Amino acid sequence: MLMIRSLLTAVAASALLVGAAQAQDVKIAEALRDKALTDRLAWDITEDLTTNIGPRLVGSPGMERAKDWGVARFKALGFTNIKVDQFAKPSWTRGEESAELVAPYPMKLSIVGLGRTIPTPAEGVEAEVALFTTYAEMVAAPASAIKGKIVVITQPMVRAQDGAGYGVAGISRRAGPVEAAKRGAVALLIRSVSTSSSTVPHTGVTTNGADVVTIPAAALGVPEAEQLERLAKKGPLRIKLKLASSLDAGDVAWNISADIKGSEKPDEVIVIGGHLDSWDVGTGAFDDAAGIAITTAAAKLIGELPKHPKRTIRVVMWGSEESGGSSDAFLAANKSNLEKLVLAGESDTGADRIYSLQLPRGSEGHPAMKAAIRTLSPLKIYFDRNPAAHGGADIGGIEGAGVPVVNLNQDASRYFDYHHTADDTLDKVDPIQLAQNVAAWTSFIYLVADSDIDFRALSAAAPAQAGH
Amino acid sequence: MLMIRSLLTAVAASALLVGAAQAQDVKIAEALRDKALTDRLAWDITEDLTTNIGPRLVGSPGMERAKDWGVARFKALGFTNIKVDQFAKPSWTRGEESAELVAPYPMKLSIVGLGRTIPTPAEGVEAEVALFTTYAEMVAAPASAIKGKIVVITQPMVRAQDGAGYGVAGISRRAGPVEAAKRGAVALLIRSVSTSSSTVPHTGVTTNGADVVTIPAAALGVPEAEQLERLAKKGPLRIKLKLASSLDAGDVAWNISADIKGSEKPDEVIVIGGHLDSWDVGTGAFDDAAGIAITTAAAKLIGELPKHPKRTIRVVMWGSEESGGSSDAFLAANKSNLEKLVLAGESDTGADRIYSLQLPRGSEGHPAMKAAIRTLSPLKIYFDRNPAAHGGADIGGIEGAGVPVVNLNQDASRYFDYHHTADDTLDKVDPIQLAQNVAAWTSFIYLVADSDIDFRALSAAAPAQAGH
Repeated sequence: MLMIRSLLTAVAASALLVGAAQAQDVKIAEALRDKALTDRLAWDITEDLTTNIGPRLVGSPGMERAKDWGVARFKALGFTNIKVDQFAKPSWTRGEESAELVAPYPMKLSIVGLGRTIPTPAEGVEAEVALFTTYAEMVAAPASAIKGKIVVITQPMVRAQDGAGYGVAGISRRAGPVEAAKRGAVALLIRSVSTSSSTVPHTGVTTNGADVVTIPAAALGVPEAEQLERLAKKGPLRIKLKLASSLDAGDVAWNISADIKGSEKPDEVIVIGGHLDSWDVGTGAFDDAAGIAITTAAAKLIGELPKHPKRTIRVVMWGSEESGGSSDAFLAANKSNLEKLVLAGESDTGADRIYSLQLPRGSEGHPAMKAAIRTLSPLKIYFDRNPAAHGGADIGGIEGAGVPVVNLNQDASRYFDYHHTADDTLDKVDPIQLAQNVAAWTSFIYLVADSDIDFRALSAAAPAQAGH
Repeated sequence: MLMIRSLLTAVAASALLVGAAQAQDVKIAEALRDKALTDRLAWDITEDLTTNIGPRLVGSPGMERAKDWGVARFKALGFTNIKVDQFAKPSWTRGEESAELVAPYPMKLSIVGLGRTIPTPAEGVEAEVALFTTYAEMVAAPASAIKGKIVVITQPMVRAQDGAGYGVAGISRRAGPVEAAKRGAVALLIRSVSTSSSTVPHTGVTTNGADVVTIPAAALGVPEAEQLERLAKKGPLRIKLKLASSLDAGDVAWNISADIKGSEKPDEVIVIGGHLDSWDVGTGAFDDAAGIAITTAAAKLIGELPKHPKRTIRVVMWGSEESGGSSDAFLAANKSNLEKLVLAGESDTGADRIYSLQLPRGSEGHPAMKAAIRTLSPLKIYFDRNPAAHGGADIGGIEGAGVPVVNLNQDASRYFDYHHTADDTLDKVDPIQLAQNVAAWTSFIYLVADSDIDFRALSAAAPAQAGH
């Protein structure tokens, strides 16, 4: 009896201690959140990177300067364990580009070559147009309707808070060139994968797989795509397209990382970050200077605490998101210690406010996550019961290898108006919404870092069907 | 007594007749207004002109096709007295244009040459930048700060419903090149005279007077102007600018007009219209296919009445608004019969809704104008007591020669986001607001055309200080 009573007392005392620690953590998380709402660091980083470095295409002098900038920023902010992991990355450089409607009358067309497109011959390609209003229509068409022609696909993109329209419309860009080439097209023009009505065209890589693109491919401004759609109803069209570009097979890129070292379990690591590279058009403010700024500022705020949380917070400035490669490189560099990566998260949907939180499967009942849900609620962030699944960006590699991920979902309503365009510039960033992002990341990550939560164990113990 | 009684009876009978005619006119005006709200003609004209003709710069093949289009449209719609008045108009043609930041780092800059700018040498102009955040600052600067430099003026434009920000910010474009040249600048770049945050730059003529521009001048995209402003705070900038263009001194333009002939006083004429020419960028949907469409559709609806109104309605498709000249040409062609022009109005602020009516001074008490104010009210158009004053556009010439003018003021809140840019395209036109414009013009013009109102006499009789 005495032994049992003693045991119960010990358990109760331990629970009280855990409860007290938990309450203290929540107070710190709330204080971090509220401080972040008026902190200027994320704005300063976004302004600095977009203004003083500018465009940061992989392989460009801008990206090389960005690498040095990243290291210097981490140092100046007091991060430790700063690493620059170099990896091989063929780089693609855009040359002069132009397109014009030749018939029924001459008119310049606003275009941008898709990333990694092959160039046209120097004199350009001129051909009759085969216009399709959807990608599916193009795939279903007989090759005779396409052979020798410039294929134009005018599939529009749906505006959605979660950006779901991107995957649907993006098929024109990802698979369009390969499928049009198979059918004998001499070039492909797609309506920009965009929610705007702007003439500013959107670039982006042409393939997401091993297929080799063998025809020149570019994106049209939205008004131009609609104009061609209207004109095609009235008669045949001819277009002349010129694209120049070059590939450097021997180029390199870098993932840069740095730590806020854990005070008790420094080898347990939470990985957060954004990507440092950008497209060559615009200055990559939404995509993704903001993500670099948000996660760096969040970690820095935690690093300013009198005592660091138990676990290490590692910020990664990913080096080749737009052209692919940083995910695999990070996985290769970390394959021996993947089980020490507690959680990974990336901020890469611009700078507008976070509206929902998705957690690793089965973790929402843990006290640290219950505290996180409550702490984010005043920021107008709701808990979405669908488990987090990040997908194909920089953390896709380690996610595929079993590292749990978190989604702090940003409102993407405006994101695809600007993304991958010359209009992705600092003026589009709203400092108030940017600060809300920092507030969410800093408080959430602190609660994970100062807890013992084991997302893998919780996921393994959870029923197979989670969410709704 | 008898005689007096008879006279009084006659006066009363006459007043009754006038009242009955007036009531009948109001009924017709209301019916025209309501029919216009669901009429498709203005949309069809806007779609046709922007899609099938495209850009219409003075001197371009597009403008020549637009002339033929205009004549054919007037014929097909049953207008009579179709006239093509040719006038001499030197034409300016844009060539290849580019600009890049050279230092502190290389970056392409989105620019568009200002209308009638001189070209740079073929190899371009490269120089250090002298940046001013306002035009006034540039004018106040010592010549030593400007000599040999590329002047950049980043003065922003204020968004205003009545477009008042245009006149203020437009000074950079109108007077900037001449004043910068006087101070020894080698070129001028201005922040686009724009309310948007788009990288798409805005063109427009460089001078409004007799001054000769002797340096190349172009407009920057708004984000680029803001980027230069931030960078200039941190150190010196260098820019390289290339502009090509040519002038054809022997070119011509055309004002095209056509009538809905008056049934009783056909020689009394109300002149309305929009301008057929556009800039070479975009397809001139807001500026000013919409104005052509609104006024043509309004006149056509009146022409479909079983009986035409008393006076003639003349629709003018002005031939050179953007580059100037149509106003003087019309004045020269009409100088012998100016007193027969009852009233003139132009629709040239896009396609968004009309929100206010301004009348010739002293006319608001006339029964026809009281009826007009009431008829427009359900369209959410208020009567602005400030007398109408159109200013410098196509009807400026005849206005200056004493022809009364009316303003049906369009909401310009969005107009300067798109005007003079590649984004001035059909997709920006809202068919519902376009129809509201037609409803206002058709009902207002009908009431003037079927009345005997003499605006000149009313103005002469009015107190000198009208309005507030």
